[in-house]
Amino acid sequence: MTESPSPLATGAVIGILGGGQLGRMLSVAASRLGFLTHIYEPGTNPPAGQVAHRVTTAAYDDEDALRAFAQSVDVITYEFENIPTSALDLLEAHRPIRPGREALRVSQDRLIEKTFLRDLGLATAPFADVTDAVSLDAGLAEIGAPAILKTRRFGYDGKGQVRIKSDADAPGAIADMAGAPALLEGFVDFSHEVSVIAARGLGGDVACFDPGENVHRDGILHTTTVPARLSASQRMDAVLMAAKILNALNYVGVMGVELFVTPQGLIVNEVAPRVHNSGHWTQNGCSVDQFEQHIRAIVGWPLGDGQRHSDVVMENLIGHDVDQLPDLVRERDCALHLYGKTDTKPGRKMGHVNRIQRPETKT
Amino acid sequence: MTESPSPLATGAVIGILGGGQLGRMLSVAASRLGFLTHIYEPGTNPPAGQVAHRVTTAAYDDEDALRAFAQSVDVITYEFENIPTSALDLLEAHRPIRPGREALRVSQDRLIEKTFLRDLGLATAPFADVTDAVSLDAGLAEIGAPAILKTRRFGYDGKGQVRIKSDADAPGAIADMAGAPALLEGFVDFSHEVSVIAARGLGGDVACFDPGENVHRDGILHTTTVPARLSASQRMDAVLMAAKILNALNYVGVMGVELFVTPQGLIVNEVAPRVHNSGHWTQNGCSVDQFEQHIRAIVGWPLGDGQRHSDVVMENLIGHDVDQLPDLVRERDCALHLYGKTDTKPGRKMGHVNRIQRPETKT
Repeated sequence: MTESPSPLATGAVIGILGGGQLGRMLSVAASRLGFLTHIYEPGTNPPAGQVAHRVTTAAYDDEDALRAFAQSVDVITYEFENIPTSALDLLEAHRPIRPGREALRVSQDRLIEKTFLRDLGLATAPFADVTDAVSLDAGLAEIGAPAILKTRRFGYDGKGQVRIKSDADAPGAIADMAGAPALLEGFVDFSHEVSVIAARGLGGDVACFDPGENVHRDGILHTTTVPARLSASQRMDAVLMAAKILNALNYVGVMGVELFVTPQGLIVNEVAPRVHNSGHWTQNGCSVDQFEQHIRAIVGWPLGDGQRHSDVVMENLIGHDVDQLPDLVRERDCALHLYGKTDTKPGRKMGHVNRIQRPETKT
Repeated sequence: MTESPSPLATGAVIGILGGGQLGRMLSVAASRLGFLTHIYEPGTNPPAGQVAHRVTTAAYDDEDALRAFAQSVDVITYEFENIPTSALDLLEAHRPIRPGREALRVSQDRLIEKTFLRDLGLATAPFADVTDAVSLDAGLAEIGAPAILKTRRFGYDGKGQVRIKSDADAPGAIADMAGAPALLEGFVDFSHEVSVIAARGLGGDVACFDPGENVHRDGILHTTTVPARLSASQRMDAVLMAAKILNALNYVGVMGVELFVTPQGLIVNEVAPRVHNSGHWTQNGCSVDQFEQHIRAIVGWPLGDGQRHSDVVMENLIGHDVDQLPDLVRERDCALHLYGKTDTKPGRKMGHVNRIQRPETKT
């Protein structure tokens, strides 16, 4: 069950929904392969627009703008998963959207995602569907506290989440959800988190980058270190689990798969149907990075093999971390990637650095 | 004698004269540092425009367009050295041009360049000023045949050059020059050509990348291999010669310095006051590549140290070389860089590949 490969030729136009840093880095990668990009973004002066051939500034309910955008491109991809269904319906009538709708349907909803993963036979944290105080109590009885209550939709970087330390926190937590459908998730006793940046081509071929080890701070990714602390069999498991997910979704493009490492094995935390912050290290560790890999997949080109030439530690520059710039530019083996955002706000991703770890000094 | 460093902040706009592949890769590098770019280019749909914030399509004698361009940017740089003097005069009245006028004056004219190098105490090929049949005969008497007659100005990639195998070729050669001032250059018996990609910052600091070894085909660069075949003392000489040139010009930016390797030492072939084709390997061999290095220099930021993390062989895709694309995309450790040019013409630079040479397979 794969789409018939019909590769796009250089010079084709790639439409990208979303003009943030992921769209920006996708645009640069597309240019290296000789493609043009057209960014669709409601906000003005999007970071991706600074390095794109065209930008459409319009809302996701502007049908004329959506139609004109679709007709101006050869294939459509996206940098975020929460695109309104109505926009996707309209766009898909004109041009292929890759990755496809099934990946979006699954990843837009935490309950559907967890259920999908469990049905694939993959381990997940214990979870329960929560619609009201009664189902929350039932969930807590099953899973036990501490647990975490999350909105089913539109959550990212720790937003839309409430911790429940004991049953007494339940009423406050359900009030915080304000009637939104939610998911109760049990805690997992893990030693560390890793992620696999996996890609699947139009012909069904799968390639994974080496897993990276993630450290979060305040609910936002702080560093990714490659290689991750994993045994050879854990590394193999991680890759096989990612491949299983991609194949089940008949996926085309790059996906980020977050995994918890536990003594009982790997547990899938969540999947993101797009290039992923924990894959930024590939820009300075591989000949073909995750952004180029995604473009290769959606245009029907052969994938890179994911080979790593260097060990890398990626560090995000969040908010005023970017004030360290004068020191960072003086640092050896430190590759800068700034996103062209003018306003520095707490929690805002302003850029990242990739620090290459060299085992030896070259002659 | 250095300009007082006054670094530009991220968000500043860099004006680039010329919209070819060098401007394109400069634009991408500028974006990684959080700068915007504005391309000035007479031709329509320039490759650099596909990844730039703004493009002005206008001739170099369009004073209104030049003025508006200058006023919209914070600093001006260029991707080629043959910019008309009148345009430079107008632009310089509004914004700094880096590298500065002296580097352009020297490199725009082969006779001035050779004289400058000789006056610095650097070895060059024997040369003579040729304005007519009489001075050509005098030059041939001094240098001897075989030799090569080159126009003083506007030559690149082997254009504007005539070989003189014996004195009998002199009349034809002078006719080919059509009255243009020329330079007669003797042949140098060299084993191979190397180039140093050197940078000098606004504060006078100099950093060089490791020399690369160049192979030409039909007068156009074919491959650059890093490291070059050089002894430690030759490598040191190469770097010192490049630094001497940059310092003498009070240069700001990246320069390509081509050197012939002979048993008697290194001989300077020519210098290019810009990022250079033989420095493209740095994109996949260094954390800070030549394009970012140039941007760092002209905005007054600290330079990268030129450290190489990987050995690389760069190969140009000239004309229909680009038809190999289906094989190249399948090749391991091969980084593609296409220029977004639609028409494939013989001799046209369509892209390049950087092949990373890995000594060992990583775990």
